[in-house]
Amino acid sequence: MGFLALNLLDSGVPLSMVCAAIGLVFALVLIAVVIRASAGNERMRQISAAVQEGAKAYLNRQVITISVIAIIIFVLLFIFKDHPTAIGFLVGAFCSLSAGFVRTTQAAATAGRTSALRMAFNGGAVTGLLVVGLALLAVSIFYTVANKIVGHDMAIRSLVGLALGASLISVFARLGGGIYTKAADVGADLVGKIEQGFEEDDPRNPATIADNVGDNVGDCAGMAADVFETYAVSLIGAILVGALTLVGNPAVIIYPFVLGGISVLGAICGVLFVNVATGKPAAVLMGGVLTSAIISAILFWPATHYLFPTGLTIAGATRTPTQLYFASVIGLVMTAVVVAITNYYTSMRYAPVQKIARASETGHATNIIAGLAVGQHATALPVGFIGIAILLSFHFAGLYGIAIAVMSMLSLAGIIISLDSFGPITDNAGGIAVMSNLPKEIRAVTDELDAVGNTMKAVTKGYAIASAGLAALVLFGSYVEELKAHVMRNGEPFVFQFSLNEPKVIIGLFLGGLLPFIFTAFSMDAVGKAAGAVVREVRRQLKAKPGILTGQDTPEYGTCVDIVTKAALREMIVPALLPLIFVVAVATIKPLGPVVLGGLLVGTIVTGLFVAIAMTSGGGAWDNAKKFIEEGNLGGKGSFAHAASITGDTVGDPYKDTAGPAINPMIKVVNI
Amino acid sequence: MGFLALNLLDSGVPLSMVCAAIGLVFALVLIAVVIRASAGNERMRQISAAVQEGAKAYLNRQVITISVIAIIIFVLLFIFKDHPTAIGFLVGAFCSLSAGFVRTTQAAATAGRTSALRMAFNGGAVTGLLVVGLALLAVSIFYTVANKIVGHDMAIRSLVGLALGASLISVFARLGGGIYTKAADVGADLVGKIEQGFEEDDPRNPATIADNVGDNVGDCAGMAADVFETYAVSLIGAILVGALTLVGNPAVIIYPFVLGGISVLGAICGVLFVNVATGKPAAVLMGGVLTSAIISAILFWPATHYLFPTGLTIAGATRTPTQLYFASVIGLVMTAVVVAITNYYTSMRYAPVQKIARASETGHATNIIAGLAVGQHATALPVGFIGIAILLSFHFAGLYGIAIAVMSMLSLAGIIISLDSFGPITDNAGGIAVMSNLPKEIRAVTDELDAVGNTMKAVTKGYAIASAGLAALVLFGSYVEELKAHVMRNGEPFVFQFSLNEPKVIIGLFLGGLLPFIFTAFSMDAVGKAAGAVVREVRRQLKAKPGILTGQDTPEYGTCVDIVTKAALREMIVPALLPLIFVVAVATIKPLGPVVLGGLLVGTIVTGLFVAIAMTSGGGAWDNAKKFIEEGNLGGKGSFAHAASITGDTVGDPYKDTAGPAINPMIKVVNI
Repeated sequence: MGFLALNLLDSGVPLSMVCAAIGLVFALVLIAVVIRASAGNERMRQISAAVQEGAKAYLNRQVITISVIAIIIFVLLFIFKDHPTAIGFLVGAFCSLSAGFVRTTQAAATAGRTSALRMAFNGGAVTGLLVVGLALLAVSIFYTVANKIVGHDMAIRSLVGLALGASLISVFARLGGGIYTKAADVGADLVGKIEQGFEEDDPRNPATIADNVGDNVGDCAGMAADVFETYAVSLIGAILVGALTLVGNPAVIIYPFVLGGISVLGAICGVLFVNVATGKPAAVLMGGVLTSAIISAILFWPATHYLFPTGLTIAGATRTPTQLYFASVIGLVMTAVVVAITNYYTSMRYAPVQKIARASETGHATNIIAGLAVGQHATALPVGFIGIAILLSFHFAGLYGIAIAVMSMLSLAGIIISLDSFGPITDNAGGIAVMSNLPKEIRAVTDELDAVGNTMKAVTKGYAIASAGLAALVLFGSYVEELKAHVMRNGEPFVFQFSLNEPKVIIGLFLGGLLPFIFTAFSMDAVGKAAGAVVREVRRQLKAKPGILTGQDTPEYGTCVDIVTKAALREMIVPALLPLIFVVAVATIKPLGPVVLGGLLVGTIVTGLFVAIAMTSGGGAWDNAKKFIEEGNLGGKGSFAHAASITGDTVGDPYKDTAGPAINPMIKVVNI
Repeated sequence: MGFLALNLLDSGVPLSMVCAAIGLVFALVLIAVVIRASAGNERMRQISAAVQEGAKAYLNRQVITISVIAIIIFVLLFIFKDHPTAIGFLVGAFCSLSAGFVRTTQAAATAGRTSALRMAFNGGAVTGLLVVGLALLAVSIFYTVANKIVGHDMAIRSLVGLALGASLISVFARLGGGIYTKAADVGADLVGKIEQGFEEDDPRNPATIADNVGDNVGDCAGMAADVFETYAVSLIGAILVGALTLVGNPAVIIYPFVLGGISVLGAICGVLFVNVATGKPAAVLMGGVLTSAIISAILFWPATHYLFPTGLTIAGATRTPTQLYFASVIGLVMTAVVVAITNYYTSMRYAPVQKIARASETGHATNIIAGLAVGQHATALPVGFIGIAILLSFHFAGLYGIAIAVMSMLSLAGIIISLDSFGPITDNAGGIAVMSNLPKEIRAVTDELDAVGNTMKAVTKGYAIASAGLAALVLFGSYVEELKAHVMRNGEPFVFQFSLNEPKVIIGLFLGGLLPFIFTAFSMDAVGKAAGAVVREVRRQLKAKPGILTGQDTPEYGTCVDIVTKAALREMIVPALLPLIFVVAVATIKPLGPVVLGGLLVGTIVTGLFVAIAMTSGGGAWDNAKKFIEEGNLGGKGSFAHAASITGDTVGDPYKDTAGPAINPMIKVVNI
């Protein structure tokens, strides 16, 4: 046992690189499988190509915009901070950007295939494995190299730069993509469905291609950057907490890497499970997650015992390897719990969505009220369980226990993103099916999968937010440790208490609590403005070429794509920079300072968690309430209830796809 | 100077009783004025009587329901706590209930008068002065009597019982009334305006009388109980903080009473100003507030110097009388600031409301998105200023300074409620005008006043919430002091730190942050359910008696009143008891305890403040965006934008009148 432990100490990080590489290779194999299966008639390929082109065009411009900002920050860090941190920032920013790219091309390629759960899932799995593999590989290579060049302490510190780079780019990608997708979606719906009575994805609607491009760049690229960021930040957070609170024990730094490596193998098993299992779509997908979690849980056991053969001494008390193992399992259980809860609140099969659907019968307003209420209700259970998870993992291994729980929760990201991309891929497939005039039955298949996809999207967002909240707490913990190391009073390290008795802490909580509110307000405004531009353009085209309505004229899809691209890039700047400016202001303005900042960090986590869960769950529930009615319930398509449910869906769009998910990286930018 | 100080020490409390009595007498004079002016034709008196009857019937049943709950809690307190606290609870509950009664009868009596700013304002001023006078008198008499019978320490402690009684009853009154008024309103609008194309207050709508009854019992009675509670709690909070942190200096206990007494005189001056000034309604009303604040600010100066001739020693440092005076002025300034900010976000004359109105042009969904965004934006400035107020008043006189600032802020309640009741009174007057078939011009006058009323309602709610947030902080401060006095470790008083480094505090923040979310979710559900019952009843009546539509049949107004009454009383129980159960659970469940509870108290304040401001401002803005369109802008009545704005208004109704304001007493129930 002793030998093995020693062995894993040396080989832990390299082994995790090997696992990450295996994940990447497996993803490449999946790509080959998916591409071989991609077929379809001429028209489908054309549309698919148009969507792909629009997405690429947007992403290229987004990359340029974000790169400019990233370089400015890099230069500032390079001048005012140390060089390794600045370089870390650049690596993080670059990887986060590429995570977005990887994803999109793939999704659009798969979209040509019109049905089949497995194809859509495999398309998603490619991204899941690529993102997780990339994140694990980037952090471990950066850490190994930095360790050799600038020494251990500096290597740890420069990881913070990497985390900041990843997070900041992620906020931009999330926001830009989110504004893009929802501006196009809301704009297309408003003028198409409500004014003209078009169906979803009607080729006569000039905003249709923009809408489908949006699914790619927002739901796919944004999510990939987001998860890359959360994964990297959680891994780095665990390393930081280990290095700061448990000085001198190298195992605490290796452990998070090992957990990550193991989970890549778990994710591959999960993907294989989905490819052999049969049954209802939702059940098969859940089976994949479960497989992945169980494999990870089994392999965590020997790894923990090898790395900590005699346990770990935290704050004077020895924790057994089994206690550490329990902390890591808590993360897996939390994932299952959050997935189950969000599934309940957003799936058509349960009471909340059906309640919204019934409320639609009495009008637009009752639909909205019901949806808002469902979103708020949906916060209760996840937050309760997060509380339990904090209590238990802290009980098992202190702050490091929380960090480990978060890392193990995030280690499931590989399989979870596969679920997430499922949604936009089926959505795209459905869109191409309609535009290609394929038979109605095919659309019915994609519609069913689409509803499952909506739930999965909400599920993965709930997961991302819950893990982000926990990860942020870990970051707050390392902020406190950092302060302890840096601030001296009377010649001794000064421990800030951040006591609630202190007005400065309360003010910090208020200011931090405010951030998610104004951040979401700004981003919803941005969607509103950009959508308004789309509506005006569509109206203009329909007026200029009345032949579009009868199918005689072809709409200019390109101008809509262009308008949304410009609007999204313009509108994302202010809200994305908001948290950064806020934090820097609080840190530097005289009567505020580090104590207020501490309160601010926690305040942002507290309200951010609620606002984000309420928004993503509420949005998902609204969307599926509409789907529930479209299935023929409560009057079906064209009924009064249906019109009301479309309103709810439209309100839910920026809620769940722009404002809600962007809170997640925002929380971390603030905390880093 | 020394003699006067001594004098005010003895006579401070009696003098404040005299001021309170003057306020009550002035209110009685106003009643006489209003009643003499109340006139109108036979039909108006009939309708007025019907509304009054419905309101009385509802309030009687509400009193019975709440009394049962109050008596159960009284018995529990009597057995498990001390007797003076239990009796205090009963006094608080009783006074809070009667505050509700006073208000309603008056509002209904005034409603017979169809126009005129002053009349509506005087109707409100009656309530303002009665509520403030009653609260000041109740606390000072209870304190004086208890002081004589059970001694000083016990008297202070039993005041907490009084505060709890007032708060708990206030939650019930707010929620019951809020559910009533909005269920009737939403129900009447949904089936009336949207399905049948009725105008507001169309006598053919069977839910009309219930709607007007709702204005009385919800907006009037609920608000009166709420302000009574906030006023009493702030006064008691200031006394507690003074008694706990500054032991042995009687002046710190007298000071809040004196501030309260002075402000009654200030309020009377403000009322007189409104009765002599001429100009735009909003300007005249603001002038009244300003007069009141200035008079108070002038009289605070000598009072502070008489009571603290040599200043006050806090935490070892001496604060000058001028510093204490500044703390008291901060409360007055904060009131002006909050009033101005809310006015900006909810008045038709400024950008936010007009933005919502323009968003209505592109449909229901964009209207909702814009309104939600405005509500969230509206949180930023008030929270920022609250932070500044905390920082400054703490700087001047520590926790006692915050308590004094809150008390002086609340001391303006007399004039502020006059503004608040202005809204429902004009709303009622307008309703009666329409139902009595009075000429359109009269309706135009009441409509203009109604829009001002909407803003004033939002303004006063913003004020109530801001002061409630501050008052809750003061209560949290006394919770900490209480714990210090009660918990001993190693033979010394143990000071809880409530450090953010501690996971238990974080869990407490999460649980506390959750409360406003699920509380509002439950109350919106309650409105939704009750409104659904109204819709079904109206549809049934219109089907059974088609003659109602042509005016040949009279609708059965009574059944709607009855349905809403039952629904409101049934639906208020769960959300109203929720915070109490939550707090008791956290306090008693083993691994949680006092530290988690501390976090919970603060967490509730943080998210509660945001949710409440976002809801009340957003709701007010939606309402006035509709009014803005109805004035003929953007297409005017009957346009597509108008239909969308009605949806926003309907969503805003439970937001601003049920869920949002009820958070205010909820925060305090939790903290007490």
